[in-house]
Amino acid sequence: MAKDKKQPRPKAQTPKGFRDYFGPEVTERAEMLRQIAEVYHRYGFDALESSAVETVEALGKFLPDVDRPNEGVFAWQDEDDSWMALRYDLTAPLARVYAQHRNDLPLPYRRYAMGPVWRNEKPGPGRYRQFYQCDADTVGAASVAADAEICAMLSDTLEHVGIPRGDYIIRVNNRKVLNGILEIVGGFVAATSEDESKLAALWDAGTEDAILRTADKFDKVGESGVRELLGEGRRDSSGAFIEGVGLSSQQIEPVIAFLTSKGDTAEETLANLRTAVGESKIGTEGVDELAQIAGLLEAQGYGADRIVIDPSVVRGLGYYTGPVFEAELTFEILDEKGRKRQFGSVSGGGRYDDLVKRFTGQAVPATGVSIGVDRLLAALREKGRISSAAQGPVVVTVMDRDRMADYQAMVSELRQAGIRAEVYLGNPKNFGNQMKYADRRGSPVAVIEGGDEKDRGVIQIKDLILGAKLAEGASLEEWKERPSQYEVPRSELVAKVREILDLHS
Amino acid sequence: MAKDKKQPRPKAQTPKGFRDYFGPEVTERAEMLRQIAEVYHRYGFDALESSAVETVEALGKFLPDVDRPNEGVFAWQDEDDSWMALRYDLTAPLARVYAQHRNDLPLPYRRYAMGPVWRNEKPGPGRYRQFYQCDADTVGAASVAADAEICAMLSDTLEHVGIPRGDYIIRVNNRKVLNGILEIVGGFVAATSEDESKLAALWDAGTEDAILRTADKFDKVGESGVRELLGEGRRDSSGAFIEGVGLSSQQIEPVIAFLTSKGDTAEETLANLRTAVGESKIGTEGVDELAQIAGLLEAQGYGADRIVIDPSVVRGLGYYTGPVFEAELTFEILDEKGRKRQFGSVSGGGRYDDLVKRFTGQAVPATGVSIGVDRLLAALREKGRISSAAQGPVVVTVMDRDRMADYQAMVSELRQAGIRAEVYLGNPKNFGNQMKYADRRGSPVAVIEGGDEKDRGVIQIKDLILGAKLAEGASLEEWKERPSQYEVPRSELVAKVREILDLHS
Repeated sequence: MAKDKKQPRPKAQTPKGFRDYFGPEVTERAEMLRQIAEVYHRYGFDALESSAVETVEALGKFLPDVDRPNEGVFAWQDEDDSWMALRYDLTAPLARVYAQHRNDLPLPYRRYAMGPVWRNEKPGPGRYRQFYQCDADTVGAASVAADAEICAMLSDTLEHVGIPRGDYIIRVNNRKVLNGILEIVGGFVAATSEDESKLAALWDAGTEDAILRTADKFDKVGESGVRELLGEGRRDSSGAFIEGVGLSSQQIEPVIAFLTSKGDTAEETLANLRTAVGESKIGTEGVDELAQIAGLLEAQGYGADRIVIDPSVVRGLGYYTGPVFEAELTFEILDEKGRKRQFGSVSGGGRYDDLVKRFTGQAVPATGVSIGVDRLLAALREKGRISSAAQGPVVVTVMDRDRMADYQAMVSELRQAGIRAEVYLGNPKNFGNQMKYADRRGSPVAVIEGGDEKDRGVIQIKDLILGAKLAEGASLEEWKERPSQYEVPRSELVAKVREILDLHS
Repeated sequence: MAKDKKQPRPKAQTPKGFRDYFGPEVTERAEMLRQIAEVYHRYGFDALESSAVETVEALGKFLPDVDRPNEGVFAWQDEDDSWMALRYDLTAPLARVYAQHRNDLPLPYRRYAMGPVWRNEKPGPGRYRQFYQCDADTVGAASVAADAEICAMLSDTLEHVGIPRGDYIIRVNNRKVLNGILEIVGGFVAATSEDESKLAALWDAGTEDAILRTADKFDKVGESGVRELLGEGRRDSSGAFIEGVGLSSQQIEPVIAFLTSKGDTAEETLANLRTAVGESKIGTEGVDELAQIAGLLEAQGYGADRIVIDPSVVRGLGYYTGPVFEAELTFEILDEKGRKRQFGSVSGGGRYDDLVKRFTGQAVPATGVSIGVDRLLAALREKGRISSAAQGPVVVTVMDRDRMADYQAMVSELRQAGIRAEVYLGNPKNFGNQMKYADRRGSPVAVIEGGDEKDRGVIQIKDLILGAKLAEGASLEEWKERPSQYEVPRSELVAKVREILDLHS
């Protein structure tokens, strides 16, 4: 009996950083994704489901010649020793798909994709190594009309899933405008530097990154804080000193002008930006693009209550190459410490024109947006747009196990009437267990037919929702006036159950 | 400029054995899964989405102490050297989930799950290493009422997604009946064997497997073929001799009686089976269970046109421990060689009572079914129940790139009216490219507004479906009588487009 040798029992648990989703968590997400897909489809976007597994080479973050890929993705070797990995987002696979199938795809190619992605990161509270993304991108359209369309679609999508107008705002900025600003700032370095080497020391990619990171703190530390951080540095509220970027005040001004250029209208904002970028060619191009986007959206009726040009949106400017967008929910929620705060960002995107080039050598313009599925779901729950208390099934109890066929017939009638229902399939001996089961299932109604009822041609129907309410604290009068259990003829099963369900819906 | 050093371009292709799904392939599957979930939900089943990644230990096919897991799953090591793997089905994860969360789950626990699974197998034509499964299982219900329910649900599901009654049949068998038969066959060995060692040599697990495998060929080789294969062996049509199992004719009879016991009614079949299992306790138990299932289904109105007791269903009998079910589509299709054949199996399942025991040490009864998502989709396409030619978007062409806002406004109006529409976002210089694009997109309608139309307040609307039909071979009269292009006032855009779409729907 070597087969039966005692082995240690395996542990019943997910790997670290993974979790399971139950019932409404699954169906509510599926329903939200279906609604999002409806809007995307109406905009002419086509569904794409690429394989979850890609070659490490195609994912591009890792070199194929290292023996074990770095952290960041889950990777392993195939039989032929080539490396494969789980996708870490939906954009890298889009680049691969477009390059692979470009001869069969329309140009421009509008596609949406939704599904899990995987990150090989240290898990933390609320941070999982598998999560959903939902993206829409247009590949092969150089015109900023494509960016404007993405913004309009994002607005329609948020409203379609249940975020009311006024509870969100989509902000648009442009990396090219920032490039113009950086050109000006850099120009001041060149003008004041005595030799090339000093220039290089003062101005490199690191400086640009530092300016970007500092600008991103505008929301938190305000104009004066950013001024200090771009210059010598700043002492924060805890007394700690944060080293500054080291720009001169002449260099700081263009950055501040950029960050504070939002006016009351799009025209005003654009005029301020024009002043801020001065003679910079790339900066002017960026402002022109924003003006075009604003014009296109206005023509379609998307006003400042939905989409605004906002130069203070800096997140993403490092990654994208042109227009950048971010959707923020503006209503307040209470955080874990009970403080009010805005719900915040649920979606972001922008233009990234070097997507396909890695594969084909040809630059292909692309722009797109990604929705944070779990955050948007949380927002909808917060707004009461999803009733998380999904309805449990009607439970037909088993009073006599030899008459299972009778009970199954009842359940069958209910189901055929479109009512969610089930017969109790556990051990029926203990009736209390059956009622506990109905409770755990969140059942609205229980049906009972004992031998006595059977003889008299009747059934008992318990309104469990009303029963629970009464149990919570009804007076004797209420108990008498509002019975939560009804005896009806067997033939009235469906009608009576429906009546109770309608009462609570 | 070390950064720009020329590196070889990555290949744009999926790993071997993986593929991408485009447009209707994605949406049709999603819609079918949504319809299936509707039925499962109505039956009281709750959704479950477990993580795609499991510990190799929990998956259970592989030992945690081997350095590199065998083929079969895609596995890799986490930072702490523990092995993780992609799930290869949805049943192993259910066992883990149930064991992990059993204190929070109702008992019995009805759950459904749908999603991709991964197999590390040699890919072949039409065989992929990632594919969809769609399962429903009841954990913790010992009663065969749970099995009957699964069969009824499977029947409702097939009809709900669009397989008409009469085009499918669900067959039910029971492993316990076969066990009874094997007991009888084995008994003959014992009776004729002179000593224990000879008995062991004649009868071991290998013999049972061989009988099972042979019985599974009943459909192909018929009764006489199975007789030969259970005995000395058989010469097939190519002249090759296939070694037999080596049973005596006395031993062969019970197997044949079992396989041929299907009568015209369930009663007849059950009576034949009772005779076949004789005095075997386990066999009689199996027949009793089948009788119960038949009774429960009859009480719910599921007649022999939908679900039958059929002892010739052998597939799965090796794996399951009790009732076994299989759904077969009975209509004929033409295979790749143009020969008629039945579409065949699209779903199978059964009872497997040792599911959770590995984890907890306690036996937990379970029964369930798995639908072959891709085969069922293919069947629906075959039956014309899915229009694979999903509607492309209305394309608004760009005649004057400075008036993009006008075109976007048109598209916006169409979308707000619920019509799928898009503006051409490629380079608009060549109008022919725009019409080619509309063609590739399968667009039903194109909208054109040049400068002349703009001045006159009109637009041109081309019916591309009718246009394509006419182009295929219309006479001059037809061309004249049925124009495929209309000039209408700009204000009638939505009305006219809708009229054309309705015409073709």
